[in-house]
Amino acid sequence: MVLEWVEARLRDGELSVGDKLPAERALAELFEISRASVREGIRVLDALGLVSSEVGSGPRSGATVVSEPSHALAWALRMHVATQALPMADIVDMRVLLETQSMKSAGRSDPAVRDEICGRARQILQRMDEGVSEELFHALDAEFHVTLGELSGNVVMVTILTSLRTAVVGYVAEGVARIEDWPKLRRRLQAQHWEILEAATRGDHAAAAELLREHILDFQAAVAS
Amino acid sequence: MVLEWVEARLRDGELSVGDKLPAERALAELFEISRASVREGIRVLDALGLVSSEVGSGPRSGATVVSEPSHALAWALRMHVATQALPMADIVDMRVLLETQSMKSAGRSDPAVRDEICGRARQILQRMDEGVSEELFHALDAEFHVTLGELSGNVVMVTILTSLRTAVVGYVAEGVARIEDWPKLRRRLQAQHWEILEAATRGDHAAAAELLREHILDFQAAVAS
Repeated sequence: MVLEWVEARLRDGELSVGDKLPAERALAELFEISRASVREGIRVLDALGLVSSEVGSGPRSGATVVSEPSHALAWALRMHVATQALPMADIVDMRVLLETQSMKSAGRSDPAVRDEICGRARQILQRMDEGVSEELFHALDAEFHVTLGELSGNVVMVTILTSLRTAVVGYVAEGVARIEDWPKLRRRLQAQHWEILEAATRGDHAAAAELLREHILDFQAAVAS
Repeated sequence: MVLEWVEARLRDGELSVGDKLPAERALAELFEISRASVREGIRVLDALGLVSSEVGSGPRSGATVVSEPSHALAWALRMHVATQALPMADIVDMRVLLETQSMKSAGRSDPAVRDEICGRARQILQRMDEGVSEELFHALDAEFHVTLGELSGNVVMVTILTSLRTAVVGYVAEGVARIEDWPKLRRRLQAQHWEILEAATRGDHAAAAELLREHILDFQAAVAS
């Protein structure tokens, strides 16, 4: 009930990102339900990245409308991967499709925007070169790929890519743990990252897309073997 | 806490689709939290399409593990479209990309599977020809597109397509309500559906993909004008 009410208010523009929800007590009176039930509804909105709840009293307490779509999608995908309803092979295929398409679309976007995105991607790779921990390497790796996804200029694309990456991060770490010579694979992956970025930076998006496809499939073959 | 526990059990294979979760009381004791808190966790799992809860007592009561990934994704996307974090234009672009790609991939799949999918798509179009209500027309329209998405052979693709379609169904109905001659547009859309299906059925997947792209953009132009 709280969920439907929030959705309707968002759609008619009465609620926007940054606004506070009414207090639990007011919502409970409005719907004639218990405050515990209102709290349950707000917890779901929180889990889905639609509100951010602050506990306690004072001006910062209560639920604020935020919007982090990839949060909910990633969580849902991760859980459904765990039930094996979503096979990893299909997730890899989707990554290849979406990431290469983002790269191919890059040619249509504003050169200044492309340069800015490539600049951020470069900073991520430079950090990865600094001998970071394995865990941070995986996190930066995911961030690098999602940053390149911004070349699509499509926020739904970036949201879905972020969700797919976040959903499989645990599986990536498990796969890597089974690999005999991880330092060697890590160097190869990082060399591939640099090649992809160099092609994108010089504007050869078709080559960058092909390198990206080979890179994703190479990693998948390495962890699956 | 309940969420992490369920995820861990799913991943190590101790829980599978069709299994029952332990009773609220048992989970509350296990985590040393209140039964109301356990119930909150289960509500979130229910909202995300991971368990199905039956109220009351008896053998059918309690929460059963199910897996309906598109449920959670659709809900999350719909809410985030409402906050305007996800622009409709970007959703349309994603639909064009994913639906045309599914059609193009169809050539790689088993001919018997393709025939079965096209047969189901044909039955949907035949029902739409029978003068169904506007609401049912939209629902069958979405079902037709998602059914063709199965030609990709990728369940993650189908899940994302289902989510995108379900997320925007309200906006489609609103857009159509603003159109002057809906019966005329409806005939045009339905004629396009038949053309797409005929091309797919005779195995000309490249032509079907192009017709599908034109169809999605034609509809979008009609409701946006």
